[in-house]
Amino acid sequence: MPKGTRDFGPIQMMRRNFIFSTIQQVFELYGYQPIETPAMETLDTLLGKYGDEGDKLIFKILNSGDFVSKIPTNLLSEAITPDLSRRITPEITEKALRYDLTVPFARFVVQHRDEITFPFKRYQIQPVWRADRPQKGRYREFYQCDVDVIGSDSLQNETELIRIIDRIFADLGIRVTIKINNRKILAGMAELIGQPERLTDLTVALDKLDKIGIEEVKKEWLTRGITEKAATELQPLLTVKGSNQEIINTLQTNLSHTKNGKAGLDELNQVLVLLANYPLQSTVEVDLTLARGLNYYTGAIIEVKSDDVIIGSICGGGRYDDLTGIFGMPGVSGVGVSFGADRIYDVLEHTEGFPGFTQTSTQVLFMNFGDKESPIAYQLAEELRNSGIRAEVYPDVAKLKKQFQYADQNHIPIVVMIGESELTEGKATVRNMITGLQSDSSIGELSANIRSYLLSL
Amino acid sequence: MPKGTRDFGPIQMMRRNFIFSTIQQVFELYGYQPIETPAMETLDTLLGKYGDEGDKLIFKILNSGDFVSKIPTNLLSEAITPDLSRRITPEITEKALRYDLTVPFARFVVQHRDEITFPFKRYQIQPVWRADRPQKGRYREFYQCDVDVIGSDSLQNETELIRIIDRIFADLGIRVTIKINNRKILAGMAELIGQPERLTDLTVALDKLDKIGIEEVKKEWLTRGITEKAATELQPLLTVKGSNQEIINTLQTNLSHTKNGKAGLDELNQVLVLLANYPLQSTVEVDLTLARGLNYYTGAIIEVKSDDVIIGSICGGGRYDDLTGIFGMPGVSGVGVSFGADRIYDVLEHTEGFPGFTQTSTQVLFMNFGDKESPIAYQLAEELRNSGIRAEVYPDVAKLKKQFQYADQNHIPIVVMIGESELTEGKATVRNMITGLQSDSSIGELSANIRSYLLSL
Repeated sequence: MPKGTRDFGPIQMMRRNFIFSTIQQVFELYGYQPIETPAMETLDTLLGKYGDEGDKLIFKILNSGDFVSKIPTNLLSEAITPDLSRRITPEITEKALRYDLTVPFARFVVQHRDEITFPFKRYQIQPVWRADRPQKGRYREFYQCDVDVIGSDSLQNETELIRIIDRIFADLGIRVTIKINNRKILAGMAELIGQPERLTDLTVALDKLDKIGIEEVKKEWLTRGITEKAATELQPLLTVKGSNQEIINTLQTNLSHTKNGKAGLDELNQVLVLLANYPLQSTVEVDLTLARGLNYYTGAIIEVKSDDVIIGSICGGGRYDDLTGIFGMPGVSGVGVSFGADRIYDVLEHTEGFPGFTQTSTQVLFMNFGDKESPIAYQLAEELRNSGIRAEVYPDVAKLKKQFQYADQNHIPIVVMIGESELTEGKATVRNMITGLQSDSSIGELSANIRSYLLSL
Repeated sequence: MPKGTRDFGPIQMMRRNFIFSTIQQVFELYGYQPIETPAMETLDTLLGKYGDEGDKLIFKILNSGDFVSKIPTNLLSEAITPDLSRRITPEITEKALRYDLTVPFARFVVQHRDEITFPFKRYQIQPVWRADRPQKGRYREFYQCDVDVIGSDSLQNETELIRIIDRIFADLGIRVTIKINNRKILAGMAELIGQPERLTDLTVALDKLDKIGIEEVKKEWLTRGITEKAATELQPLLTVKGSNQEIINTLQTNLSHTKNGKAGLDELNQVLVLLANYPLQSTVEVDLTLARGLNYYTGAIIEVKSDDVIIGSICGGGRYDDLTGIFGMPGVSGVGVSFGADRIYDVLEHTEGFPGFTQTSTQVLFMNFGDKESPIAYQLAEELRNSGIRAEVYPDVAKLKKQFQYADQNHIPIVVMIGESELTEGKATVRNMITGLQSDSSIGELSANIRSYLLSL
């Protein structure tokens, strides 16, 4: 198995399905519809969308057949340098594995624009692949669960996504803080200090405020061309403590005369006002240090952190005003968030938050006593399945100890034994594997008895 | 989008989910448990398992970084021939996309042998990738749905798989014929004619009997080294018409003195006897021409054809006595079948067999009349979601015509309008989009009214 990839056994699958189905159900409750795109995209579609570092992390597929003969001969006669590999790559690959779900979604929207009714509310739950160095909690194949509205400017969408986040984590039993910011507020700060061109420098350092403190941020700003005076002017805005309303009030005092700052504050404020109509289980917190892929987002920026487990963000996203422009369809605004299923899995594992899983594993095992006794077992198992009960018959005539071990190791709660004596008497011995208690049932009433027992659990 | 790959929009997704969930539910009713393996396997794991042709069709992943420098310099100085590409491939790739689910499953079993309780009943529903030339009904990315029991010799497993096939196609509403054969019967025929070493030649031609007729098969046999006398001896066995029992009787008369033939007939007979205990909806048909991947199967061979649509097999499999031997764990017998989700999709499309899908799409759309009217709509939508109803509010204040079009094109059955006058009167106008009828409801009773209406559908 390649490093950074994983197998999932039955228990992990059930836990993962719990996460996926919870997320999917909430997406659908809010009217989002599923789509899927192929694992492979053309290299053209992916390259240049994730920066130089991203391009290197894209898994490329070697062309089939005689790929060497397609390499221009002048390349082949060159000295071997790392740069040569980079230049030969497009000559021998034309497909690659998707790196995220956003770029394939943009390609999907442009390609199917005539079939799509806008606003288009879609969700997509699929694996992505990145040639990152594998480490704890970072894999080369992992699932993203994306939900986006495209073709609507309304801030109701931002509000709805926050409610979706709140409901999903409530349903998963994970306590979270939902952090929100707005790119325009950050742009307003750059405007305020008279250095609008320094927006990226401003935020790259700001992003580390939590970790390194304001003094270090100010030092980094200096190295990045932000003046001492500007830093002093920004400091009170960024270190203000208090409720969301208090933060907004401070910003309003200082930023409302900047064009971007005013627009961003209005948006942020409106989202908070709309949210106030609903009881949320999560904390919603204005966080001015939040920048996340700033070059990409144009309005709201959203990020979700677990309250109980120290781990990177488990969900994040924002508004982008020109997702499809790169594929020749400009001016379509969208807003969306992506849930990281693998980190959510890690959080639930830490908090022991997974429910006890009985829903997809076998409920009833019939022991196999031999060719004479097993036909009635097979028949009764079929009867149970007809009423939706997951049942199996041990396929081999093995020692009872081995059969019991099988039931035990597969966490099967009920074992039914119909041996020679039971068969003669027309009855079955039913063992509750949880309590260890055994009882008898007539064969005729066995299905009904098991059904009512399972309902009572 | 790379050729041979497809996007799936919401309608296709719902249809595909209908197929996957039907298959999955039946697998689980019979006690099979889900696993998943990574999309990528090491090249070593995959190469040499599918024959030379198969090896060529495996999608290989280009190594990251400076791959050129890893190519032995003597290879780089060679003349450019197609063979050079073949020899350079293992120097610049070490991972590949899985070609089927069977080989990754074998690798899984060997790797996790200490955690697995045998017999191991697993299912796996995942895409596979093949660099085949794309054509109608053949894709480079497609889904397989595999179900296997491993570590049990009992013929009860073969019987169970046939019942699973029968139940799945009954649940999908597809009429099928389940063809069965046994490799040992074919080996018995080769034994009968004194040419046991010609088993493959015998079956490669026999496989075409349906298409080209017995005379052509006999001609091909001659070219493949099977004698005229042998062909004459086999003909009556292969052209016998009648019930399964009549075919078995004829074989018994002619083959029961061969070691393999007797074993194969006993197995086939026993499976049919066990099956007779259950009412099946499908036809089960002994088909002596069935060979499918003969080098792989060692006992039962199973293939399923649609009765109503002319298309290749939609499910197939058999028993293999040494799946894991290639990975160093010999002597583990298994039996399994694989359902082809894409062909099943095509069959259901031809027969118009998909149910009408309302289950995952939005049930109720609230129109958006503006900032004054929409808060109550958002609140009522949330109320509906709390009782599990999929509801959305149109996010923008758009013309009613546009909002109705949205409802129409997304097949939303109920539209709720709360405009200025409705708001004043404390009522809502509810439009049934199927009948076009409109009625009023007080806002207080709206949720209850919609719930009971949806239940009545």
